[in-house]
Amino acid sequence: MTDPDVRAEIMTATYEALCEHGYTELTAQDIADKTDKSKSLLFYHYDSKEDLIVDFLDYLLEMVDERITEFQSADPVERLALFVDWYLYGADDGDLQSFHTAMLELRTQAPHNDRYREQLRRSDERLRVALERILEDGIATEAFVDHDPERTAALLIAAIDGARIRQLTLEREAYLDEVRAALVARIFDELLAESADFPVETESPSEIDSDSNAEATGDDP
Amino acid sequence: MTDPDVRAEIMTATYEALCEHGYTELTAQDIADKTDKSKSLLFYHYDSKEDLIVDFLDYLLEMVDERITEFQSADPVERLALFVDWYLYGADDGDLQSFHTAMLELRTQAPHNDRYREQLRRSDERLRVALERILEDGIATEAFVDHDPERTAALLIAAIDGARIRQLTLEREAYLDEVRAALVARIFDELLAESADFPVETESPSEIDSDSNAEATGDDP
Repeated sequence: MTDPDVRAEIMTATYEALCEHGYTELTAQDIADKTDKSKSLLFYHYDSKEDLIVDFLDYLLEMVDERITEFQSADPVERLALFVDWYLYGADDGDLQSFHTAMLELRTQAPHNDRYREQLRRSDERLRVALERILEDGIATEAFVDHDPERTAALLIAAIDGARIRQLTLEREAYLDEVRAALVARIFDELLAESADFPVETESPSEIDSDSNAEATGDDP
Repeated sequence: MTDPDVRAEIMTATYEALCEHGYTELTAQDIADKTDKSKSLLFYHYDSKEDLIVDFLDYLLEMVDERITEFQSADPVERLALFVDWYLYGADDGDLQSFHTAMLELRTQAPHNDRYREQLRRSDERLRVALERILEDGIATEAFVDHDPERTAALLIAAIDGARIRQLTLEREAYLDEVRAALVARIFDELLAESADFPVETESPSEIDSDSNAEATGDDP
């Protein structure tokens, strides 16, 4: 894959086809139908559906990296709030719900698929390290009290991921707001130094940047 | 389904068949093969694979209720520790990993399947209410400081579920211990009244009761 425009077109088509068909039922033809290219041209670029999905997971990881970089300029408390709301509330419309369902199907393949698992592990690593950095920076600037950023990051990622999966599979919308409120009351308020407050609500990701579909998902990877 | 022995045999067979084949690939024949009954006798008791799975989700819920009842005699701090370790560490051998993978496949169907979603919602409700009770009892006995048990229960369920799914799909074993340690350091130690300590480790569910496969899973529902 050398032409970035062709790759971007195929990646956008893959995103749209996943929203429409889910992962399990997805065919190369479904993806080709979302481009002005033929299925055979798709297989000129990718040897298999698996190859294409592995590259799509790379593409999502690039979006995650971009988003994390965008957060850098804010102070640690604001960065923590931006990270949590981006990762928690990514799924804010019907299309993103479909995309998250497709991603959950794909993640369910990971125990049997080394290449998917490898990509998802890279994404997990990236997210946990980004959160750890935010917490470490906050300890350094004395915005947060001293604590263990590595474990706290793992807990936050697990809690947000769990809340999203339960909201999605149970259609119990309250999960997201309840878990955010509990994160603030039970964890962030305890972490914050006396002088600081945790933001009630941050600007939603779609308000910050609505240029790209995949950019606003906050999904794994 | 009137004969409880026949039902128990079919339920055990369903558990074993799910461990061996996963949910997506599961056929009625796979389940019949785990019993001394024919596939046609299975369909005498259940109209479809979906019907059987709905009853299996009921069966799991009965196991959850039994487990929750077993915890009742302990004091609130001990009950919280037992609940967390049961729900977090259910997956402690290869077979249970396979079962959890099958359950994740099944949960992925819930956005499209009203009957599965309904069963999973009942299970979610049961688990959250059980945790809320433990937290409320702890507030009443002054073992825990005053807080919002409903939101805290949602956070704990989401965090433990998220940790298990990430451990399972990423094969990153550290998730379980990291999240438990962070729950203790960041949440439980803050909730506990001055005089109380959170147990480092509780007796594992398999030590408490290894009579039944499904009983020890700590799975949804």
